[in-house]
Amino acid sequence: MKKYRLLIDTIDQKGLIYKITEILYDHGTNIEKNNEFVDLAKNRFFMRTEIKGLVNEEKLLKDLRSTLSSHNKIDLISGAPKDIVLMVTKESHCLGDLLIRYQNQELNANIKGIISNHNNLAELVESFSLPFFYISHQDLSREEHEEKVLSVLEQLQPEIIVLAKYMRILSQNFVSKYEEKILNIHHSFLPSFIGSNPYKQAYERGVKIIGATAHFVNENLDDGPIIAQDVINIDHSLSWMEMQKAGRDVEKIVLARALNLVLEDRIFTQENKTIIF
Amino acid sequence: MKKYRLLIDTIDQKGLIYKITEILYDHGTNIEKNNEFVDLAKNRFFMRTEIKGLVNEEKLLKDLRSTLSSHNKIDLISGAPKDIVLMVTKESHCLGDLLIRYQNQELNANIKGIISNHNNLAELVESFSLPFFYISHQDLSREEHEEKVLSVLEQLQPEIIVLAKYMRILSQNFVSKYEEKILNIHHSFLPSFIGSNPYKQAYERGVKIIGATAHFVNENLDDGPIIAQDVINIDHSLSWMEMQKAGRDVEKIVLARALNLVLEDRIFTQENKTIIF
Amino acid sequence: MKKYRLLIDTIDQKGLIYKITEILYDHGTNIEKNNEFVDLAKNRFFMRTEIKGLVNEEKLLKDLRSTLSSHNKIDLISGAPKDIVLMVTKESHCLGDLLIRYQNQELNANIKGIISNHNNLAELVESFSLPFFYISHQDLSREEHEEKVLSVLEQLQPEIIVLAKYMRILSQNFVSKYEEKILNIHHSFLPSFIGSNPYKQAYERGVKIIGATAHFVNENLDDGPIIAQDVINIDHSLSWMEMQKAGRDVEKIVLARALNLVLEDRIFTQENKTIIF
Amino acid sequence: MKKYRLLIDTIDQKGLIYKITEILYDHGTNIEKNNEFVDLAKNRFFMRTEIKGLVNEEKLLKDLRSTLSSHNKIDLISGAPKDIVLMVTKESHCLGDLLIRYQNQELNANIKGIISNHNNLAELVESFSLPFFYISHQDLSREEHEEKVLSVLEQLQPEIIVLAKYMRILSQNFVSKYEEKILNIHHSFLPSFIGSNPYKQAYERGVKIIGATAHFVNENLDDGPIIAQDVINIDHSLSWMEMQKAGRDVEKIVLARALNLVLEDRIFTQENKTIIF
Repeated sequence: MKKYRLLIDTIDQKGLIYKITEILYDHGTNIEKNNEFVDLAKNRFFMRTEIKGLVNEEKLLKDLRSTLSSHNKIDLISGAPKDIVLMVTKESHCLGDLLIRYQNQELNANIKGIISNHNNLAELVESFSLPFFYISHQDLSREEHEEKVLSVLEQLQPEIIVLAKYMRILSQNFVSKYEEKILNIHHSFLPSFIGSNPYKQAYERGVKIIGATAHFVNENLDDGPIIAQDVINIDHSLSWMEMQKAGRDVEKIVLARALNLVLEDRIFTQENKTIIF
Repeated sequence: MKKYRLLIDTIDQKGLIYKITEILYDHGTNIEKNNEFVDLAKNRFFMRTEIKGLVNEEKLLKDLRSTLSSHNKIDLISGAPKDIVLMVTKESHCLGDLLIRYQNQELNANIKGIISNHNNLAELVESFSLPFFYISHQDLSREEHEEKVLSVLEQLQPEIIVLAKYMRILSQNFVSKYEEKILNIHHSFLPSFIGSNPYKQAYERGVKIIGATAHFVNENLDDGPIIAQDVINIDHSLSWMEMQKAGRDVEKIVLARALNLVLEDRIFTQENKTIIF
Repeated sequence: MKKYRLLIDTIDQKGLIYKITEILYDHGTNIEKNNEFVDLAKNRFFMRTEIKGLVNEEKLLKDLRSTLSSHNKIDLISGAPKDIVLMVTKESHCLGDLLIRYQNQELNANIKGIISNHNNLAELVESFSLPFFYISHQDLSREEHEEKVLSVLEQLQPEIIVLAKYMRILSQNFVSKYEEKILNIHHSFLPSFIGSNPYKQAYERGVKIIGATAHFVNENLDDGPIIAQDVINIDHSLSWMEMQKAGRDVEKIVLARALNLVLEDRIFTQENKTIIF
Repeated sequence: MKKYRLLIDTIDQKGLIYKITEILYDHGTNIEKNNEFVDLAKNRFFMRTEIKGLVNEEKLLKDLRSTLSSHNKIDLISGAPKDIVLMVTKESHCLGDLLIRYQNQELNANIKGIISNHNNLAELVESFSLPFFYISHQDLSREEHEEKVLSVLEQLQPEIIVLAKYMRILSQNFVSKYEEKILNIHHSFLPSFIGSNPYKQAYERGVKIIGATAHFVNENLDDGPIIAQDVINIDHSLSWMEMQKAGRDVEKIVLARALNLVLEDRIFTQENKTIIF
């Protein structure tokens, strides 16, 4: 039986769970999993429900919309694999990790292609029988390069773009075309060490823990909603190159964890924050 | 406005959330927090709801009972502080930690007294102006000693008993009088190193991580439902005495975390497991 | 037999370990523990050695100094308890934690007194039979207040000052009098959320992990050498007040861990970093 | 300049560091890194030194042997890549992770081949241009199957064998041929849940943390010296299948970490424990 994920983000009011679950009951659906959160400070109500047995999608949405107050966002999503595109530069650890998971059918996604501004990862990608798009930025302005990338993306039509260590900054124009659809892994424990070479910054500050952060990309660099973070302990004996090497394991694990949350439609965003069920 | 915690543990069936929240709505209550879990393997439904605005407790319970199937457990609990008793032997770290939290009003509880089979902690307890009951086990059988302890407990009437490093094994008779009311901290990452001197066992096995486990006490020693666990990294350089010292911080944090979960009525038990919201 | 800790911080050169351990051997000492670290980038050598059986302290230092290059720092420290003073404002969790450890003889220190700019912790301190100095900052300039604090410190002669949630900024004048002698706990994962109310900042940024940092205080606020850090996972459901509450456990554990490292003379500082053995 | 790792495991005595470093100095070597540990309980001394500038290997070993007491073990190892063989069954996460690291030149090793009792991973291995040996156990006794595996191993001559989720128990005969050369990843936080299907055991016990353990294989199953362990938090909502999936990330990270420690010659074993520098 087909399963759906129902995501509701609306103004909080008395009786919401009752009203929503009544509609779900009237539609003959069975609730398999249900999570709610009320942000009292913002007066918002968030609910994610996994349902089974739905017959009429259109009617359910209509019934929900007529019951909820006007300022709401309702998504009814089937559990079908999402189309995704990976973007990389030169490093292989995040890409390789995702490819191994993909081959092992651990990602509920179709990888439509991998785009890179370098070509050293072409062979790795091709060994997994996936299309590799090498779009060098040599001799191109940021705008010109992005246009080429965007034209490939238009052709691939991804629902989600994963920056798996793509080391170029995206323009506001680019980001605005894929709002809340771009997932990035930042190699520091944000908001520490924003900007370039966070491991070197961490080394120089003498921290005892380093980390990585997966976040949605918005128009302010490194400032989008955080999805997942993790850390590892380090000590004085590591050079910043060794910290960078040690950090790779955290980066790849955190990115994969965040991607799975996205693929399972577990994330609501509210301003620059995430609510995750 | 008075707040309640409603805990429902029942056989799963279609429409349960709807039916329960309809009753809550009809009673004019407002849901502030809500969690559900369905154990598909056991076909059980667990729901914990924080409500406000309830007028008629009796009627709510009656309405819920008439709607739910017969095999259920419904608890409607006010958020009033619970009466608790702490039991200790000689070590002060868990006891001291709880006393500091208590004085700082971080525990939603009334400590009715501290019982110990030694008297070295009397002064510490008394500096917090709490009653200390020294019940030596010298020259007593286990049965005789427990009788004395039980008679103090009868007088103090605790809702929860916290074994904060109480180093004597409790008899089945004792445990059965306070089923799911006794909380223990075990100084290992259960089920590793069951039994005596877990740190020495851990040292001898050469593990790289040690931990602590807070659990409800049932009739099988160290086998009750686990509430909370945490770990710390160690290496070859620690003697077992140093491991024991390092472990104290984990023990006290884990015990306090578990106690707070109990005091906030966040725990369901199902056989030898816990569901925690 | 008396034990010593020998700390050597010097320019790196070939044969250093051999030359130093030869002197230690000639002095009839036994090495119980030994750690070295070479900072290749800065060409510095750090060595901490625990020795037993030393007869002539003066002669050992003279022999070491004549062997090592001129730019060095040599400390020969007996394991005697250090005199410390704690400074607090209103919160009890760090103070209480240290007092419980102290009473349990877990700190190799003599607490000479507790200084506070509020008096709400007086009773807690006095229940541990320790002197409490209430120095209100009401109606005083920073300078005037610090003068009063400094005069108490002069009387108490601490080797180490522990800011156990002392919520006032210290002037450069104050800090310069106790260089590398002041230990602070900052309630964030530095360098994230420098400045006031880090939990509120963390809440607003929507981070998924919060932490605490113990560091030496130098003239730049929150910028001194980091000694210890730790973190806990959080999620969207916590208000910043709940994050603050959850953070207390990390704060107290990290502060105590750092203090123990200081009391065991395990820390070298190099510019704004620490080398810890 | 060629680098060496010198590993010394000997009976503790006064002046050992001095005597050893004197010899190293006389040989004109430069110490780049040095670690020692004295196991006071067993009266053993362990030292690992990274040296540069050695001219005469034979003479150094001779000089060391004539200085140390008779019961010792001295290894002088160049940093050359070690030949390794991976053994797998059906799961790809550990294997894939190691292959990606290998391709990215993160392992100081030569993978001579991958042996499996199934053939589903052949394609993955071949896409990395490595030899895959499919040795089915169908219709063979354990002895017969192992003989076939041993004959491939004899041909490949590995210095280290990595069981990267090889799900068959090795006989004592097999293990004895590669003493302290076989590295295994056990999918539980040993010594918890020894034996088959640890995730199911963990699920049934209701633990709140699961983990993985990398260890040397000795003659007692799951009882060899532990090299590395790590854990992740879980809760009641995970089925054992989901725990198994969540555990994969820990398994692969822990195995890779342990393998790197082996490849860098950082591990001493003493009975069933490890000393790791």
